[in-house]
Amino acid sequence: MRRLLLISNSTLHGSGYLDHCKKQIKEFLSDKVKTVLFVPYALHDRDDYTSTARKAYNEIGYQLEGIHEKPSAVEAVRQAEALFIGGGNTFRLLKTLYDENIVDEIYKRVYNDGMPYIGSSAGTNVATVSINTTNDMPIVFPPSFKAINLVPFNINAHYQDPDPNSKHMGETRAKRIEQYHEYEDSPPVLGIREGCILHVEGDKATLRGVTDARLFVRGKEPVEYKPDADMSFLL
Amino acid sequence: MRRLLLISNSTLHGSGYLDHCKKQIKEFLSDKVKTVLFVPYALHDRDDYTSTARKAYNEIGYQLEGIHEKPSAVEAVRQAEALFIGGGNTFRLLKTLYDENIVDEIYKRVYNDGMPYIGSSAGTNVATVSINTTNDMPIVFPPSFKAINLVPFNINAHYQDPDPNSKHMGETRAKRIEQYHEYEDSPPVLGIREGCILHVEGDKATLRGVTDARLFVRGKEPVEYKPDADMSFLL
Repeated sequence: MRRLLLISNSTLHGSGYLDHCKKQIKEFLSDKVKTVLFVPYALHDRDDYTSTARKAYNEIGYQLEGIHEKPSAVEAVRQAEALFIGGGNTFRLLKTLYDENIVDEIYKRVYNDGMPYIGSSAGTNVATVSINTTNDMPIVFPPSFKAINLVPFNINAHYQDPDPNSKHMGETRAKRIEQYHEYEDSPPVLGIREGCILHVEGDKATLRGVTDARLFVRGKEPVEYKPDADMSFLL
Repeated sequence: MRRLLLISNSTLHGSGYLDHCKKQIKEFLSDKVKTVLFVPYALHDRDDYTSTARKAYNEIGYQLEGIHEKPSAVEAVRQAEALFIGGGNTFRLLKTLYDENIVDEIYKRVYNDGMPYIGSSAGTNVATVSINTTNDMPIVFPPSFKAINLVPFNINAHYQDPDPNSKHMGETRAKRIEQYHEYEDSPPVLGIREGCILHVEGDKATLRGVTDARLFVRGKEPVEYKPDADMSFLL
């Protein structure tokens, strides 16, 4: 039943908020959905964030409600037609999902009822096994790095290739993921570049968007995948 | 009694391991110290890391021993003449400091006995209030983000200015620190660029090295400081 649209980034350079993925969102939600429940927990100003998201969804024909405007977050998830979790800080987002007791509730709604789940950036990270491969700064301490576990692997959003001209000595993204894979039982990590989207329908996963993804599996050489690649083997 | 040498990065572009700060390390340790205790927990291969560090310290006249080679980490800290904590992954480092029960022990040795503490990158992060402002990927879950607390502020090592030509939409470093400061009671964050060093002697803190630092205080505009600036007001 699982239906997911996992987007690398909300805004692509040179275009507006969600512009690069509105077509995919519209196809994904179709005309069966009227109202989307929005989770703005990854940013500090939830009202402002909700009004930005509402504008984008209204343009493609959907109503949007902020979960923080509801009396109960759990009840809001139980009744949602579809969910959109926006980007920002992944630690703040995951901590708030735990604080509001909706990690398990979202999992159940996606798996039992096929509630469509759209995530962007941090919202994509929390859909995976864990937030161990986020790029964000750990500005708050969540009770766990385990996430909603809607897919059995991790994602690195905003994936970046090493810059051969850089004089910066901090670890490259690939090096950081390699350090994660020094641990046994660490799951595969799909690096999705800005502009890249992973679309999951039940047991079928397909790459969408305009950029390639790079798959890192512990103990193996990374492999590149192009848009429309079948990624179902990861599920 | 506190004596700290907090280095932004172990290797500066175009030079070898610790080359850019060997002079400061030699002045800091002087000829009173014979042997340095090295903490290689931030990297996976501790033996390899220790041999790299040993080579650099030997060149300036010090013996170096890896803490992982000792029967008891707590006992090794208790007996150390001086401590050097190397860079790598800050989450792995802090988790291991907790696992080995040496967070409090290091604090006591520095405050009560004036044991010289040298940190580089992740080793600098763990000397501060917390690792909330590390750049590293959260590849393991430590029991807390609270660190050794040898200074009453946080540091962002490898601090980078925004690149005006970048098309990448991930948050800039300044934006990430600003998100940290959305929380009340978040301490100041000193962004030390690669090549920058903070030297603390008791209640006196001085900027060293070849690059500037940028200080972020909640609710205020960031301020730039040049090498040799007196930073004692932060203590």
